[in-house]
Amino acid sequence: ISYPPPAIKSDSGDHTKWGEVETMLNMAAERIKKMGGKVELADAGTHQLPSGETVLLPPVILAEFAKDPKKATLCIYGHVDVQPAKMEDGWATDPFNLTEIKGNLYGRGATDNKGPVLAWLHAVESYQATKKEIPVNIKLIIEGLEEVGSYGLFKLIKKRRDSFFADVDFIVISDNVWATTTPALTYGTRGSSYFFVEIEGPKLDLHSGVYGGSIQEPMADLIALLGSLLDHTGKIQVVGVSDDVTPLTEDERKLYDNISFDLEEMKNVVGVKHFLQDTKEEVLMARWRYPSLSIHGVEGAFSDPGSKTIIPRKVTGKFSIRQVPNMDPPDVERKVKEHLEQVFSTLNSPNRLKVTATVGAKPWVANLQDSQYVAGQKAVKDVFGVEPEFIREGSTIPIAQTFQEETGKSVMMLPISGHDDGEHSQNEKISRYNYIEGTKLFAAYFYELSLLH
Amino acid sequence: ISYPPPAIKSDSGDHTKWGEVETMLNMAAERIKKMGGKVELADAGTHQLPSGETVLLPPVILAEFAKDPKKATLCIYGHVDVQPAKMEDGWATDPFNLTEIKGNLYGRGATDNKGPVLAWLHAVESYQATKKEIPVNIKLIIEGLEEVGSYGLFKLIKKRRDSFFADVDFIVISDNVWATTTPALTYGTRGSSYFFVEIEGPKLDLHSGVYGGSIQEPMADLIALLGSLLDHTGKIQVVGVSDDVTPLTEDERKLYDNISFDLEEMKNVVGVKHFLQDTKEEVLMARWRYPSLSIHGVEGAFSDPGSKTIIPRKVTGKFSIRQVPNMDPPDVERKVKEHLEQVFSTLNSPNRLKVTATVGAKPWVANLQDSQYVAGQKAVKDVFGVEPEFIREGSTIPIAQTFQEETGKSVMMLPISGHDDGEHSQNEKISRYNYIEGTKLFAAYFYELSLLH
Repeated sequence: ISYPPPAIKSDSGDHTKWGEVETMLNMAAERIKKMGGKVELADAGTHQLPSGETVLLPPVILAEFAKDPKKATLCIYGHVDVQPAKMEDGWATDPFNLTEIKGNLYGRGATDNKGPVLAWLHAVESYQATKKEIPVNIKLIIEGLEEVGSYGLFKLIKKRRDSFFADVDFIVISDNVWATTTPALTYGTRGSSYFFVEIEGPKLDLHSGVYGGSIQEPMADLIALLGSLLDHTGKIQVVGVSDDVTPLTEDERKLYDNISFDLEEMKNVVGVKHFLQDTKEEVLMARWRYPSLSIHGVEGAFSDPGSKTIIPRKVTGKFSIRQVPNMDPPDVERKVKEHLEQVFSTLNSPNRLKVTATVGAKPWVANLQDSQYVAGQKAVKDVFGVEPEFIREGSTIPIAQTFQEETGKSVMMLPISGHDDGEHSQNEKISRYNYIEGTKLFAAYFYELSLLH
Repeated sequence: ISYPPPAIKSDSGDHTKWGEVETMLNMAAERIKKMGGKVELADAGTHQLPSGETVLLPPVILAEFAKDPKKATLCIYGHVDVQPAKMEDGWATDPFNLTEIKGNLYGRGATDNKGPVLAWLHAVESYQATKKEIPVNIKLIIEGLEEVGSYGLFKLIKKRRDSFFADVDFIVISDNVWATTTPALTYGTRGSSYFFVEIEGPKLDLHSGVYGGSIQEPMADLIALLGSLLDHTGKIQVVGVSDDVTPLTEDERKLYDNISFDLEEMKNVVGVKHFLQDTKEEVLMARWRYPSLSIHGVEGAFSDPGSKTIIPRKVTGKFSIRQVPNMDPPDVERKVKEHLEQVFSTLNSPNRLKVTATVGAKPWVANLQDSQYVAGQKAVKDVFGVEPEFIREGSTIPIAQTFQEETGKSVMMLPISGHDDGEHSQNEKISRYNYIEGTKLFAAYFYELSLLH
């Protein structure tokens, strides 16, 4: 079956189309109001585009249902904007017309994050429909710019810390995926810093035939610098950069035993003969709880197909370091700069080195003894009959760390999306199974959380 | 003053505009005929474009003036096609309207190579106008595709070796520039091989947050390989690759003493604090008579401005090695491949390495005891009153090596273009001085060469 339009193409990538995002937010707000929620469309302020133009941001939904001071208050975060999607990208079905095929619901936003947002509302509705009291007070914060970096949201959270967030006990986010086919609770994300290593030499690009051999080429300097960052086992060579990595405890190590991650299957999915590590546990830890460094590319050198015999005058190498607790991004930045400057000094180069960094997000890790994780674990057992996998994300999801830091509240990530849902890709989907069982999980989670409060 | 059109825009870069190149060749042919030359517009055959399409090549002018079997026969090479040029590229004057400013004649092709071709014709005309017998037999070979790689020319030379070239004693080329403000004879050019180092890893580009730390990244392998090629003094680290470099003799070393190359001025022109070498002689030798290796760039990695956090699945590093006598390009290729494979084997990588090479041109060096160089030296003294500088070109000029190899004749490069003429650049020019004194040099050269025969 195919669900008819109107579809709202709330792709937030192009700011000239944020009208669609607002339409989507308004639709969500109306839905919540109909359910008896009190909704504020909170002003998110303005944002300066790279062009210098300042634009008004779409609002953020701040909503709450009837409040009982005796109950715990849970604030649910979600977003209703999506990544771009077009048939021409290789979708098998219209990405903005939800289409069911063999138990999967295909459509942009199906799993990231409209599906899970609806599942939260369904969980509330399930109590309402069965005339049962919702066992926790529910608040909602729903934004429309997650896919472009949540402009305005962090400021709004700070501003409402002592009002909207004052009575919140727990914040829950369902905006990521399971690691395997087993339900999961996510208790950490890596942070990231992005580095630009610029080497500037001659005034102009030079002919390598005419000048080659007499010039200390910026590209040769850059290759030497980039080559000093890693050894071939993937170990970061920047002195001291991994010093602050939280040591692995026995309790933490045990969490990895239970994860049904299939190393052979993953080799096939990725298409590699072997990973840098030999065991499932080591590979997952490398992705989740240890830092990593990736070299992404070089700007300013010849990058087209074919051949060109130029000595580029200025080249910029780009790499990023994924960071974990308790690494401190400014400290990492300082150590990387010192390292690069030290290596550069050994090159006796007439060229100029400039290292700049942008900090993407801080790493985040939650306390698994926290009530939310205990309740989450019980809810998974209630609905799925299995123990959840306790997982982390290798990529940054800044919102978790921001909530924790800005509000001081307990934060959990409670995914219901499948590991093969293809968020951001063509043919994004959520299965009926995950959607319906996920809704049940949320409802059970309200209940289990209330018991612990 | 400004010379009126019709200008012929004989830019050979775009094959759909080769009609203009033919118009230019026809104009040159008519001019030679009017001077009493016998002209053949020789069929140069066909060429296959990268698209697969086969196109007819413009003809090549093969011309000769009256022949006296007692005289030596000199064959002059030149080309009448040019590099592209547009006002928008930053020209101060219309590139296809020859414009004189303060003794310089600005226009595309003024120095590369229409000006020198005309100077050769003027040198012949100077004998005709003064009713003096030309002291050598003159042949001309003039092409219209030099700037794109002389398609068809090398085959034609081979085909006419025993006919057009059979009675040729000397081949002279004036298609390069002086090294300084002093007239020069050019006796060598470097050759070149271009290398592609491809590392292919995962099936797809990967998110560095999700996978970083578990994957041996193709870019890290590539950086390790590229970093193994050179040390920071510019010395090539590939074992054995420089073994066949002709040792420097005392006679050759002395040639460098006389070159009025100003190292400080060159630092300013290029915009570097220092070269890899300290003295004028060392810098020139590094550019002309020793091999060099330049890393040009990486294809497949992130190369745009800004940041992107992808682990690229396949990257191709590109570098070239400038080669000198008696390095042998196939031997160099073999040694480079062995070196890269050896280094790669130490990385224990699951990725796949593929090294390919294209040979651009062989190195070329002439014998300075050859009559042409003796005559050239005398002609420079006759006209300019100074000793010429004996110079080499760091870049490839395949035509000299091709003539020498295919015809077995003596080859000399006798430039009349200034070192600051900006061939291939905006505001290309030849000075009135170089144009007129260059014409005299050519006429004197005919005379001096005849004395030695």
